[in-house]
Amino acid sequence: MSGKSIKVDMIPSVFTLGNLFFGFLAILWTMNGEYKMAAGFILFSVLMDSMDGKVARKLSVSSDFGKELDSLCDVVSFGVAPAVLTYKVLLAAHMGFWGMLLAAAFAMCGAVRLARFNILNITTHFLGVPITFAGGFMALLILFHKSLPWVIFPVALAVLAFLMVSTIKVPKLGK
Amino acid sequence: MSGKSIKVDMIPSVFTLGNLFFGFLAILWTMNGEYKMAAGFILFSVLMDSMDGKVARKLSVSSDFGKELDSLCDVVSFGVAPAVLTYKVLLAAHMGFWGMLLAAAFAMCGAVRLARFNILNITTHFLGVPITFAGGFMALLILFHKSLPWVIFPVALAVLAFLMVSTIKVPKLGK
Repeated sequence: MSGKSIKVDMIPSVFTLGNLFFGFLAILWTMNGEYKMAAGFILFSVLMDSMDGKVARKLSVSSDFGKELDSLCDVVSFGVAPAVLTYKVLLAAHMGFWGMLLAAAFAMCGAVRLARFNILNITTHFLGVPITFAGGFMALLILFHKSLPWVIFPVALAVLAFLMVSTIKVPKLGK
Repeated sequence: MSGKSIKVDMIPSVFTLGNLFFGFLAILWTMNGEYKMAAGFILFSVLMDSMDGKVARKLSVSSDFGKELDSLCDVVSFGVAPAVLTYKVLLAAHMGFWGMLLAAAFAMCGAVRLARFNILNITTHFLGVPITFAGGFMALLILFHKSLPWVIFPVALAVLAFLMVSTIKVPKLGK
Protein backbone atom coordinates (compact mmCIF):
# COMPACT_ATOMS: atom_id res chain seq x y z
CA MET A 1 0.00 0.00 0.00
CA SER A 2 1.53 3.35 -1.01
CA GLY A 3 1.74 6.37 1.28
CA LYS A 4 -0.81 8.18 -0.87
CA SER A 5 -3.47 5.47 -0.71
CA ILE A 6 -3.08 5.33 3.08
CA LYS A 7 -3.84 9.07 3.23
CA VAL A 8 -7.03 8.84 1.12
CA ASP A 9 -8.11 5.84 3.19
CA MET A 10 -7.81 8.02 6.28
CA ILE A 11 -10.30 10.73 5.19
CA PRO A 12 -13.43 8.86 6.38
CA SER A 13 -11.67 8.27 9.73
CA VAL A 14 -11.80 12.02 10.42
CA PHE A 15 -15.59 11.71 10.56
CA THR A 16 -15.32 8.50 12.60
CA LEU A 17 -13.17 10.33 15.15
CA GLY A 18 -15.73 13.16 15.05
CA ASN A 19 -18.31 10.54 16.08
CA LEU A 20 -16.14 9.61 19.11
CA PHE A 21 -15.46 13.28 19.91
CA PHE A 22 -19.17 14.12 20.16
CA GLY A 23 -19.85 10.91 22.10
CA PHE A 24 -17.14 11.94 24.57
CA LEU A 25 -18.67 15.43 24.86
CA ALA A 26 -22.08 13.83 25.47
CA ILE A 27 -20.62 12.08 28.55
CA LEU A 28 -19.01 15.31 29.84
CA TRP A 29 -22.21 17.31 29.29
CA THR A 30 -24.21 14.59 31.08
CA MET A 31 -21.86 15.05 34.07
CA ASN A 32 -22.59 18.78 34.00
CA GLY A 33 -26.35 18.14 34.06
CA GLU A 34 -26.91 19.56 30.56
CA TYR A 35 -28.95 16.65 29.29
CA LYS A 36 -30.45 18.15 26.13
CA MET A 37 -27.01 19.20 24.93
CA ALA A 38 -25.70 15.71 25.74
CA ALA A 39 -28.54 14.13 23.70
CA GLY A 40 -27.78 16.60 20.89
CA PHE A 41 -24.12 15.54 20.88
CA ILE A 42 -25.16 11.88 20.50
CA LEU A 43 -27.31 12.88 17.50
CA PHE A 44 -24.27 14.74 16.10
CA SER A 45 -22.37 11.46 16.46
CA VAL A 46 -25.11 9.74 14.42
CA LEU A 47 -24.55 12.35 11.71
CA MET A 48 -20.75 11.83 11.78
CA ASP A 49 -21.26 8.07 11.66
CA SER A 50 -23.42 8.32 8.54
CA MET A 51 -20.91 10.75 6.97
CA ASP A 52 -17.92 8.41 7.33
CA GLY A 53 -19.75 5.69 5.41
CA LYS A 54 -20.91 8.12 2.71
CA VAL A 55 -17.42 9.60 2.30
CA ALA A 56 -15.83 6.13 2.17
CA ARG A 57 -18.25 5.11 -0.61
CA LYS A 58 -17.75 8.40 -2.48
CA LEU A 59 -13.96 7.99 -2.41
CA SER A 60 -14.26 4.24 -3.00
CA VAL A 61 -12.05 3.60 -0.01
CA SER A 62 -12.85 1.05 2.63
CA SER A 63 -10.12 -0.06 5.00
CA ASP A 64 -9.93 -2.60 7.78
CA PHE A 65 -8.52 0.21 9.91
CA GLY A 66 -11.60 2.34 9.21
CA LYS A 67 -13.93 -0.54 10.05
CA GLU A 68 -12.16 -1.26 13.35
CA LEU A 69 -12.08 2.42 14.30
CA ASP A 70 -15.78 2.79 13.45
CA SER A 71 -16.79 0.10 15.96
CA LEU A 72 -14.50 1.52 18.66
CA CYS A 73 -16.15 4.93 18.29
CA ASP A 74 -19.69 3.49 18.03
CA VAL A 75 -19.43 1.63 21.35
CA VAL A 76 -18.66 4.93 23.10
CA SER A 77 -21.14 7.23 21.32
CA PHE A 78 -24.09 4.84 20.97
CA GLY A 79 -23.46 2.30 23.74
CA VAL A 80 -21.86 4.07 26.71
CA ALA A 81 -22.99 7.70 26.19
CA PRO A 82 -26.76 7.01 25.86
CA ALA A 83 -26.61 4.54 28.78
CA VAL A 84 -24.82 7.05 31.04
CA LEU A 85 -27.24 9.81 29.96
CA THR A 86 -30.39 7.73 30.53
CA TYR A 87 -29.07 6.55 33.90
CA LYS A 88 -28.33 10.10 35.06
CA VAL A 89 -31.57 11.68 33.75
CA LEU A 90 -34.05 9.04 34.89
CA LEU A 91 -32.81 5.67 36.10
CA ALA A 92 -30.68 6.87 39.04
CA ALA A 93 -33.65 8.51 40.76
CA HIS A 94 -36.29 5.91 39.89
CA MET A 95 -34.38 2.62 39.93
CA GLY A 96 -31.06 3.16 41.75
CA PHE A 97 -28.85 0.05 41.65
CA TRP A 98 -31.06 -1.80 39.14
CA GLY A 99 -31.03 1.18 36.85
CA MET A 100 -27.23 1.13 36.96
CA LEU A 101 -27.18 -2.57 36.03
CA LEU A 102 -29.65 -1.98 33.18
CA ALA A 103 -27.58 0.92 31.80
CA ALA A 104 -24.40 -1.19 31.98
CA ALA A 105 -26.22 -4.09 30.27
CA PHE A 106 -27.21 -1.79 27.39
CA ALA A 107 -23.56 -0.79 26.84
CA MET A 108 -22.41 -4.42 27.14
CA CYS A 109 -25.01 -5.67 24.62
CA GLY A 110 -23.88 -2.91 22.28
CA ALA A 111 -20.26 -4.12 22.53
CA VAL A 112 -21.29 -7.77 21.95
CA ARG A 113 -23.33 -6.73 18.91
CA LEU A 114 -20.41 -4.81 17.38
CA ALA A 115 -17.91 -7.64 18.04
CA ARG A 116 -20.28 -10.21 16.51
CA PHE A 117 -21.07 -8.10 13.46
CA ASN A 118 -17.38 -7.42 12.77
CA ILE A 119 -16.44 -11.10 12.63
CA LEU A 120 -19.44 -12.15 10.52
CA ASN A 121 -18.63 -9.77 7.65
CA ILE A 122 -22.25 -9.59 6.45
CA THR A 123 -22.71 -6.79 3.93
CA THR A 124 -26.31 -7.31 2.75
CA HIS A 125 -28.13 -6.62 6.02
CA PHE A 126 -27.62 -6.00 9.73
CA LEU A 127 -27.84 -8.87 12.23
CA GLY A 128 -29.67 -7.41 15.22
CA VAL A 129 -30.64 -3.76 15.56
CA PRO A 130 -27.62 -1.51 14.80
CA ILE A 131 -26.11 0.22 17.83
CA THR A 132 -26.30 3.58 16.00
CA PHE A 133 -30.09 3.21 15.83
CA ALA A 134 -30.37 2.10 19.47
CA GLY A 135 -28.18 4.94 20.78
CA GLY A 136 -29.75 7.57 18.51
CA PHE A 137 -33.25 6.47 19.53
CA MET A 138 -32.40 6.78 23.25
CA ALA A 139 -30.97 10.28 22.61
CA LEU A 140 -34.20 11.31 20.84
CA LEU A 141 -36.29 9.97 23.73
CA ILE A 142 -34.17 11.95 26.21
CA LEU A 143 -34.87 15.17 24.28
CA PHE A 144 -38.57 14.68 25.17
CA HIS A 145 -38.11 13.07 28.57
CA LYS A 146 -40.17 15.68 30.42
CA SER A 147 -43.27 14.85 28.32
CA LEU A 148 -42.89 11.07 28.64
CA PRO A 149 -43.55 8.70 31.56
CA TRP A 150 -40.21 7.62 33.09
CA VAL A 151 -41.00 3.91 32.73
CA ILE A 152 -40.62 4.18 28.95
CA PHE A 153 -36.87 4.68 29.40
CA PRO A 154 -35.87 1.45 31.18
CA VAL A 155 -38.24 -0.47 28.88
CA ALA A 156 -36.68 1.12 25.78
CA LEU A 157 -33.14 0.42 27.06
CA ALA A 158 -33.97 -3.22 27.80
CA VAL A 159 -35.80 -3.83 24.50
CA LEU A 160 -33.06 -2.17 22.42
CA ALA A 161 -30.32 -4.04 24.33
CA PHE A 162 -32.10 -7.31 23.54
CA LEU A 163 -32.71 -6.36 19.89
CA MET A 164 -29.02 -5.48 19.44
CA VAL A 165 -27.86 -8.98 20.42
CA SER A 166 -30.84 -10.72 18.78
CA THR A 167 -30.48 -12.44 15.41
CA ILE A 168 -33.24 -10.52 13.65
CA LYS A 169 -32.28 -9.32 10.18
CA VAL A 170 -32.49 -5.56 9.71
CA PRO A 171 -32.30 -4.20 6.13
CA LYS A 172 -29.59 -1.65 5.36
CA LEU A 173 -31.02 1.72 4.31
CA GLY A 174 -29.60 4.73 2.52
CA LYS A 175 -27.00 2.96 0.44
CA MET B 1 -17.60 -24.62 14.70
CA SER B 2 -19.70 -26.76 17.06
CA GLY B 3 -22.02 -25.35 19.71
CA LYS B 4 -19.71 -26.67 22.43
CA SER B 5 -16.58 -24.98 21.11
CA ILE B 6 -18.47 -21.68 20.85
CA LYS B 7 -19.34 -21.96 24.55
CA VAL B 8 -15.74 -22.60 25.69
CA ASP B 9 -14.60 -19.75 23.44
CA MET B 10 -17.00 -17.48 25.30
CA ILE B 11 -15.54 -18.00 28.82
CA PRO B 12 -12.78 -15.38 28.47
CA SER B 13 -15.44 -12.94 27.20
CA VAL B 14 -17.08 -12.97 30.63
CA PHE B 15 -13.92 -11.31 31.98
CA THR B 16 -13.78 -8.98 28.97
CA LEU B 17 -17.33 -7.83 29.70
CA GLY B 18 -16.30 -7.48 33.37
CA ASN B 19 -13.64 -5.07 32.12
CA LEU B 20 -16.35 -2.99 30.35
CA PHE B 21 -18.66 -3.21 33.38
CA PHE B 22 -16.06 -1.72 35.73
CA GLY B 23 -15.10 0.90 33.14
CA PHE B 24 -18.77 1.89 32.91
CA LEU B 25 -18.99 2.09 36.72
CA ALA B 26 -15.86 4.27 36.74
CA ILE B 27 -17.69 6.81 34.54
CA LEU B 28 -20.81 6.75 36.76
CA TRP B 29 -18.74 7.11 39.96
CA THR B 30 -16.83 10.00 38.36
CA MET B 31 -20.21 11.71 37.78
CA ASN B 32 -21.03 11.23 41.47
CA GLY B 33 -17.74 12.86 42.49
CA GLU B 34 -16.33 9.65 44.02
CA TYR B 35 -12.99 9.85 42.27
CA LYS B 36 -10.98 7.29 44.24
CA MET B 37 -13.68 4.68 43.72
CA ALA B 38 -13.75 5.55 40.01
CA ALA B 39 -9.96 5.12 39.78
CA GLY B 40 -10.32 1.82 41.69
CA PHE B 41 -12.88 0.59 39.14
CA ILE B 42 -10.46 1.34 36.29
CA LEU B 43 -7.80 -0.72 38.10
CA PHE B 44 -10.39 -3.52 38.47
CA SER B 45 -10.82 -3.31 34.69
CA VAL B 46 -7.05 -3.76 34.30
CA LEU B 47 -7.36 -6.92 36.40
CA MET B 48 -10.28 -8.23 34.31
CA ASP B 49 -8.36 -7.43 31.13
CA SER B 50 -5.35 -9.45 32.28
CA MET B 51 -7.65 -12.30 33.37
CA ASP B 52 -9.35 -12.71 29.98
CA GLY B 53 -5.98 -13.20 28.29
CA LYS B 54 -4.81 -15.65 30.98
CA VAL B 55 -8.04 -17.66 30.83
CA ALA B 56 -7.95 -17.73 27.01
CA ARG B 57 -4.39 -19.11 27.11
CA LYS B 58 -5.26 -21.61 29.86
CA LEU B 59 -8.23 -22.93 27.87
CA SER B 60 -6.26 -22.65 24.60
CA VAL B 61 -9.12 -20.69 23.09
CA SER B 62 -8.63 -17.53 21.13
CA SER B 63 -11.45 -16.24 18.99
CA ASP B 64 -11.81 -13.31 16.62
CA PHE B 65 -14.97 -12.47 18.55
CA GLY B 66 -12.98 -12.30 21.80
CA LYS B 67 -10.33 -10.11 20.20
CA GLU B 68 -12.92 -7.67 18.80
CA LEU B 69 -14.81 -7.54 22.10
CA ASP B 70 -11.56 -6.94 24.01
CA SER B 71 -10.77 -3.78 22.04
CA LEU B 72 -14.35 -2.50 22.33
CA CYS B 73 -14.18 -2.83 26.12
CA ASP B 74 -10.61 -1.43 26.34
CA VAL B 75 -11.53 1.82 24.57
CA VAL B 76 -14.19 2.48 27.23
CA SER B 77 -12.29 1.39 30.36
CA PHE B 78 -8.81 2.66 29.46
CA GLY B 79 -9.54 5.40 26.91
CA VAL B 80 -12.80 7.14 27.83
CA ALA B 81 -13.07 6.43 31.60
CA PRO B 82 -9.57 7.72 32.60
CA ALA B 83 -10.00 10.75 30.32
CA VAL B 84 -13.40 11.63 31.83
CA LEU B 85 -12.03 11.07 35.34
CA THR B 86 -8.90 13.19 34.82
CA TYR B 87 -10.97 15.94 33.20
CA LYS B 88 -13.44 16.03 36.10
CA VAL B 89 -10.86 15.82 38.91
CA LEU B 90 -8.29 18.31 37.59
CA LEU B 91 -8.53 19.55 34.02
CA ALA B 92 -12.00 21.14 34.21
CA ALA B 93 -10.96 23.53 36.98
CA HIS B 94 -7.42 24.28 35.75
CA MET B 95 -7.72 24.18 31.97
CA GLY B 96 -11.42 24.42 31.03
CA PHE B 97 -11.97 24.08 27.28
CA TRP B 98 -8.38 23.03 26.54
CA GLY B 99 -8.59 20.37 29.21
CA MET B 100 -11.70 19.01 27.53
CA LEU B 101 -9.91 18.86 24.17
CA LEU B 102 -6.90 17.13 25.75
CA ALA B 103 -9.10 14.54 27.47
CA ALA B 104 -10.97 13.87 24.20
CA ALA B 105 -7.62 13.57 22.36
CA PHE B 106 -6.46 10.92 24.86
CA ALA B 107 -9.60 8.83 24.18
CA MET B 108 -9.26 9.32 20.42
CA CYS B 109 -5.56 8.31 20.40
CA GLY B 110 -6.56 5.22 22.39
CA ALA B 111 -9.14 4.28 19.74
CA VAL B 112 -6.64 4.84 16.90
CA ARG B 113 -4.07 2.69 18.70
CA LEU B 114 -6.54 -0.18 19.15
CA ALA B 115 -7.75 -0.02 15.54
CA ARG B 116 -4.17 -0.01 14.22
CA PHE B 117 -3.03 -2.85 16.47
CA ASN B 118 -6.02 -5.02 15.48
CA ILE B 119 -5.28 -4.84 11.76
CA LEU B 120 -1.53 -5.36 12.10
CA ASN B 121 -1.86 -8.71 13.90
CA ILE B 122 1.52 -8.42 15.61
CA THR B 123 1.92 -11.05 18.33
CA THR B 124 5.54 -10.63 19.40
CA HIS B 125 5.36 -7.10 20.83
CA PHE B 126 3.11 -4.06 21.17
CA LEU B 127 3.33 -1.20 18.69
CA GLY B 128 2.98 1.94 20.80
CA VAL B 129 2.19 1.95 24.52
CA PRO B 130 -0.81 -0.34 25.23
CA ILE B 131 -4.02 1.49 26.17
CA THR B 132 -4.38 -0.72 29.27
CA PHE B 133 -1.08 0.66 30.56
CA ALA B 134 -1.99 4.27 29.68
CA GLY B 135 -5.44 4.07 31.33
CA GLY B 136 -4.19 2.14 34.36
CA PHE B 137 -1.35 4.61 34.88
CA MET B 138 -3.77 7.59 34.82
CA ALA B 139 -6.01 5.79 37.35
CA LEU B 140 -3.02 5.25 39.66
CA LEU B 141 -2.04 8.92 39.36
CA ILE B 142 -5.60 9.97 40.24
CA LEU B 143 -5.43 7.91 43.44
CA PHE B 144 -2.61 10.22 44.59
CA HIS B 145 -3.83 13.43 42.97
CA LYS B 146 -3.95 15.40 46.21
CA SER B 147 -0.21 14.85 46.79
CA LEU B 148 0.81 15.71 43.23
CA PRO B 149 1.01 19.04 41.38
CA TRP B 150 -1.95 19.34 38.96
CA VAL B 151 0.29 20.02 35.96
CA ILE B 152 1.49 16.40 36.03
CA PHE B 153 -1.95 15.27 34.86
CA PRO B 154 -2.28 17.08 31.53
CA VAL B 155 1.39 16.29 30.79
CA ALA B 156 0.84 12.58 31.56
CA LEU B 157 -2.33 12.51 29.41
CA ALA B 158 -0.56 14.18 26.48
CA VAL B 159 2.59 12.02 26.70
CA LEU B 160 0.60 8.77 27.02
CA ALA B 161 -1.74 9.78 24.15
CA PHE B 162 1.32 10.38 21.96
CA LEU B 163 3.03 7.14 23.06
CA MET B 164 -0.13 5.14 22.27
CA VAL B 165 -0.14 6.23 18.62
CA SER B 166 3.67 6.22 18.32
CA THR B 167 5.48 3.38 16.61
CA ILE B 168 7.74 2.50 19.53
CA LYS B 169 8.00 -1.23 20.20
CA VAL B 170 6.91 -2.27 23.68
CA PRO B 171 7.79 -5.82 24.81
CA LYS B 172 4.92 -8.07 25.94
CA LEU B 173 5.24 -9.09 29.58
CA GLY B 174 3.69 -11.84 31.67
CA LYS B 175 3.12 -14.35 28.92
